[in-house]
Amino acid sequence: MNGRAPIPVGILGATGTVGQRFIQLLENHPWFYVDEVMASDQSAGKNYVEAVGPRWKLTTRIPEKVAKLKVRGSGDPLRSPVLFSSLDASVAGELEHHYASHGHLVSSNSRNHRLDPFVPLVIPEVNRDHIELIGRQSFSKDNGRGGILTNPNCSTIVMVMALAPLHRAFGVKSVIVTTFQATSGAGYPGVSSLDILGNVVPYIPGEEPKMELETNKILGKLGEHGIESAGITVSASCHRVPVLDGHLMAVSVKLRREATLEQVLAAVKGFRPLQDLPLPSAPAEPIQVRDEDDRPQPRLDVDRSSGMGVTIGRVRECPVLDWKFEALGHNTIRGAAGAAILNAEILAHIGRI
Amino acid sequence: MNGRAPIPVGILGATGTVGQRFIQLLENHPWFYVDEVMASDQSAGKNYVEAVGPRWKLTTRIPEKVAKLKVRGSGDPLRSPVLFSSLDASVAGELEHHYASHGHLVSSNSRNHRLDPFVPLVIPEVNRDHIELIGRQSFSKDNGRGGILTNPNCSTIVMVMALAPLHRAFGVKSVIVTTFQATSGAGYPGVSSLDILGNVVPYIPGEEPKMELETNKILGKLGEHGIESAGITVSASCHRVPVLDGHLMAVSVKLRREATLEQVLAAVKGFRPLQDLPLPSAPAEPIQVRDEDDRPQPRLDVDRSSGMGVTIGRVRECPVLDWKFEALGHNTIRGAAGAAILNAEILAHIGRI
Amino acid sequence: MNGRAPIPVGILGATGTVGQRFIQLLENHPWFYVDEVMASDQSAGKNYVEAVGPRWKLTTRIPEKVAKLKVRGSGDPLRSPVLFSSLDASVAGELEHHYASHGHLVSSNSRNHRLDPFVPLVIPEVNRDHIELIGRQSFSKDNGRGGILTNPNCSTIVMVMALAPLHRAFGVKSVIVTTFQATSGAGYPGVSSLDILGNVVPYIPGEEPKMELETNKILGKLGEHGIESAGITVSASCHRVPVLDGHLMAVSVKLRREATLEQVLAAVKGFRPLQDLPLPSAPAEPIQVRDEDDRPQPRLDVDRSSGMGVTIGRVRECPVLDWKFEALGHNTIRGAAGAAILNAEILAHIGRI
Amino acid sequence: MNGRAPIPVGILGATGTVGQRFIQLLENHPWFYVDEVMASDQSAGKNYVEAVGPRWKLTTRIPEKVAKLKVRGSGDPLRSPVLFSSLDASVAGELEHHYASHGHLVSSNSRNHRLDPFVPLVIPEVNRDHIELIGRQSFSKDNGRGGILTNPNCSTIVMVMALAPLHRAFGVKSVIVTTFQATSGAGYPGVSSLDILGNVVPYIPGEEPKMELETNKILGKLGEHGIESAGITVSASCHRVPVLDGHLMAVSVKLRREATLEQVLAAVKGFRPLQDLPLPSAPAEPIQVRDEDDRPQPRLDVDRSSGMGVTIGRVRECPVLDWKFEALGHNTIRGAAGAAILNAEILAHIGRI
Repeated sequence: MNGRAPIPVGILGATGTVGQRFIQLLENHPWFYVDEVMASDQSAGKNYVEAVGPRWKLTTRIPEKVAKLKVRGSGDPLRSPVLFSSLDASVAGELEHHYASHGHLVSSNSRNHRLDPFVPLVIPEVNRDHIELIGRQSFSKDNGRGGILTNPNCSTIVMVMALAPLHRAFGVKSVIVTTFQATSGAGYPGVSSLDILGNVVPYIPGEEPKMELETNKILGKLGEHGIESAGITVSASCHRVPVLDGHLMAVSVKLRREATLEQVLAAVKGFRPLQDLPLPSAPAEPIQVRDEDDRPQPRLDVDRSSGMGVTIGRVRECPVLDWKFEALGHNTIRGAAGAAILNAEILAHIGRI
Repeated sequence: MNGRAPIPVGILGATGTVGQRFIQLLENHPWFYVDEVMASDQSAGKNYVEAVGPRWKLTTRIPEKVAKLKVRGSGDPLRSPVLFSSLDASVAGELEHHYASHGHLVSSNSRNHRLDPFVPLVIPEVNRDHIELIGRQSFSKDNGRGGILTNPNCSTIVMVMALAPLHRAFGVKSVIVTTFQATSGAGYPGVSSLDILGNVVPYIPGEEPKMELETNKILGKLGEHGIESAGITVSASCHRVPVLDGHLMAVSVKLRREATLEQVLAAVKGFRPLQDLPLPSAPAEPIQVRDEDDRPQPRLDVDRSSGMGVTIGRVRECPVLDWKFEALGHNTIRGAAGAAILNAEILAHIGRI
Repeated sequence: MNGRAPIPVGILGATGTVGQRFIQLLENHPWFYVDEVMASDQSAGKNYVEAVGPRWKLTTRIPEKVAKLKVRGSGDPLRSPVLFSSLDASVAGELEHHYASHGHLVSSNSRNHRLDPFVPLVIPEVNRDHIELIGRQSFSKDNGRGGILTNPNCSTIVMVMALAPLHRAFGVKSVIVTTFQATSGAGYPGVSSLDILGNVVPYIPGEEPKMELETNKILGKLGEHGIESAGITVSASCHRVPVLDGHLMAVSVKLRREATLEQVLAAVKGFRPLQDLPLPSAPAEPIQVRDEDDRPQPRLDVDRSSGMGVTIGRVRECPVLDWKFEALGHNTIRGAAGAAILNAEILAHIGRI
Repeated sequence: MNGRAPIPVGILGATGTVGQRFIQLLENHPWFYVDEVMASDQSAGKNYVEAVGPRWKLTTRIPEKVAKLKVRGSGDPLRSPVLFSSLDASVAGELEHHYASHGHLVSSNSRNHRLDPFVPLVIPEVNRDHIELIGRQSFSKDNGRGGILTNPNCSTIVMVMALAPLHRAFGVKSVIVTTFQATSGAGYPGVSSLDILGNVVPYIPGEEPKMELETNKILGKLGEHGIESAGITVSASCHRVPVLDGHLMAVSVKLRREATLEQVLAAVKGFRPLQDLPLPSAPAEPIQVRDEDDRPQPRLDVDRSSGMGVTIGRVRECPVLDWKFEALGHNTIRGAAGAAILNAEILAHIGRI
């Protein structure tokens, strides 16, 4: 990217919680700048600052240039080659398809296309080879530049980051995971305070199947007929807790090949798959292992590496499966907007954008 | 107990969080009344109301009679046949032994003697036959009335209540449990607000081994040489969450014998082991099964059956083990003071008191 | 009421947060029973239990009889002489008028008619003589039984309860009040967790003028031309805090006549205006004064007298005005559903129902 | 300071909550570097990282150089010319005096010397002329370099920052303030979670008199005989709320001279008293005025200007006094460590260090 002119990007679903994160994270981004914002039709035609109004819930202010952008409506023609999507699932399927077929590269955080056979579901540190799938999308025919690329669900991504080095080194056979998920994962207004103050809700609609299915696609192998499932049995129990940002999870893993604690730790600590790629949002240390008994904690560790790092701790034997540990990641950065941006960075790096 | 005069009881560690619960739960108790309170030496000699001062953190007021009781110091002679103990572990071992050897029946919530071979670790609904062990304690020789009886740790008790009907019907082979524990479990002042506001702490010192060891004693069989371990492999991951009262846990279970969902639910719903015993604190429905997707929740369900009931929900297949579910119980009532009182009630019922 | 048959009542807006409280508080009420429930048209025709679904957020379960009631739609004919209303302000004005003109006595918690000149805004302990205004409503002509009676806003009622004995004894000239309001006051879903977890929001739309205007009507004098304002200058600053139930407020007061601390305390402690009336929901001690430095606190004191009592504390000199103190009351019981029920009880007592 | 070598500083009370903030804020400070750390005797002799252990509660890690510093004990000889003190009040009085008399300039956040007649209580934006008082301290005789300088209490400082421009322009006659204070203000472990989860505590020991007394010293005039009180009547009601960082307060003010809203806003917005001084920690905009109805909020606004800015909002007429508004500041940065550092910066700037 060195020497290239900055690339204009558009944000689909720009007024939502993740849309706001896109705008925040792209302020001062060295490769991309926000040139267009799209939102629902009641926002269309307003300046972004008016459209988002008091729903802007980040601690930094709206970047001045974005504040003045006129909001586009659903399906309006856009000119940016790259579109970041955090559209609501009720409209994301159709709209992302629409823009991809009009030549845009859509890097989406929405769930709709994640499991499509030719849509890559990518964590750059884990399965960047899957990006190749974009070439098999109909949008790409005849040198079309359009395409759809997705990042995983916010809890899946944290878990899979932690599992990836173990899977690579020893093979993961099965996983039991219990999550402690932050309320920002549900957007705004999202979780009612009456449900979560001093409480835990042991259910998040649709979340458990996502963790089970997405994990197997991400860790699966790219073959001629698309992605071959990794064959990992995943049992997830998902909970909402009164935490603002950061999904914590207790993970127990059964491996296919035996490993010692030293080998397990070495695999995780040596995980630096992007270290030779100059991607602006890639954390230097994608997985940090803490030695303290009581870490990671959302409040203390969620912002490590600007919210792009996953922190694990309490790595120890599981008397029932093989190993267990705690993993934590920032759900709207590493688990959403930051993930989609990192995905676009790798596309830009390989010249696909 | 019908027709018997009310039995005077003493509270050891009366000013602490659990000590306060004993006093609250015994107000208006039909069989017992609080006649003596013992606390640390800096409280000794004061009236209870002065000794506890602003540390009284319950929403009901101190019963008038208890407020005026003069606090006894460590090891002071007491006259009540039954002593409820919530002494700090640093002194409980010795003091409980002292009082038992002076002829008192000590129903203890402290951890010190729980794993002693001749000390019963009892949940009346689960293993009341273990009470017989008291007779093998040295305190009982020559018709001595003294003895020590314990109840389990607050998270163990919730889990074991839920496991007991499954173990009885199908045998439990292994369990993976992840807890969401309330801060009242750590006493007062206990957990600092700086640690837990908007946060989760993935560690509670000593808690995981307790869940693993106590479970096997409670579900174990009483034999000639004491309790034979139940042989269940337990893997626990314990967490503190910003909830005041109520330990919630996600439990996955592997059974020894196959069962259908109907059989599992029938076993749990049919669990009424105390229904013919007129124990004042025994809940009519010890385990309630909720059908809603998002229950149990601490805020909504913790006080069911005056805090003595365990609520479970989301009973479903675990793709890795066999079954998984959520369980919830009140940690300072069912998991502490209420448990010790129920234990004493059963002793009174069988005439041991 | 002794010897009278129980009176059937209807609930308008029965699925909302306050509607649920009506149903909860009227279970086992000695004078009233819930015979009809009305809600929005998407609920109409369903059984109540289905209509309310997971929005039922109370810790007690839906009373069985109410669960089975078929929900009526907006404006459907009803037969109960008394209707409790917690309708949304967008429809309450018209619907309450409709039912009153069809002969129902509407005891409303909605804000729409509170400041109407002939609608009494009543706290029975404070201004029950205002009830007479009902007779001047057009609904009452020609012996019509219809009418509208309102209770104050949830924060107003707590403050005015505390001010009333001072106003009666010394005259209140001005008040500066800062509130700490619970999230249940905003209904469900109401306040988003993203707005309130670990946060304070220093604004509640419409709340400050309500406290300023309603106070003067309640403490005003009933005259020939309606209520004459009490002429108290009120300056309110309203805040939402992460508390579930209970509005706390810091109040500074300037009196018209001088008073000593003893006189102030005597006025408040001697306030027992309903002690000779056998109203089921009237608290024996409407205002309790706490002596401790750090009370009242929402968590510890909100449920006193089944949520119908107001607790005050820290009564001390205000160096700028005259006196200051803290006041606390339960916002959905004393401040809403319980208030409307108490209002209906007094109507029943005087034979108006 | 340009061109000067960095100045070594020591931290007294280095393991506490404010001590940690000193260390965090001084990492990469352009003028000062932490060369010595002092703590209680049980920490003495250990490396800082061991001494502080799991009590380090900030989201950034301990700077490497500080981690390795050997902790000094109470009263041990130190070599740094500047000492930042966040000693516990039980020892601060004596120890700060000790070090000042040994030639150190002590910039203290502790309360002990704040009201001493010759100890300046300084907010650089407000009363930097008071610094001159140091020269009247006995430590300064015969060209001694020692001295004690203090910053105000964490809630006082936020209020006084907001009052200062009004006082300067119109004279402040009286103030009624109600605070919403974060739990970090009480240190670690400080406020128990059982006291504050879902609760408000309407009392903070010693806080109200501090706000009343310190305000009058800071806004007072330096005269021959020390500081002449500003003569402002202050009535404070202090509350602890479940917020981690950030003291919010509702302030009502009576002015000595009439002012319009425009004049009030102009006075506050034009407040830039340090704009010509190149102090590294001075915020460009010491008071920011927000126009939105619902700001400032701790979660959204506390970190503005790296925690050194005060944010006010809702400026409007008070019907009882003259004006009212909300003010917010970061209690452990602007209200503690950052304040003491800014105080030292101004001493360095004027060559006193």
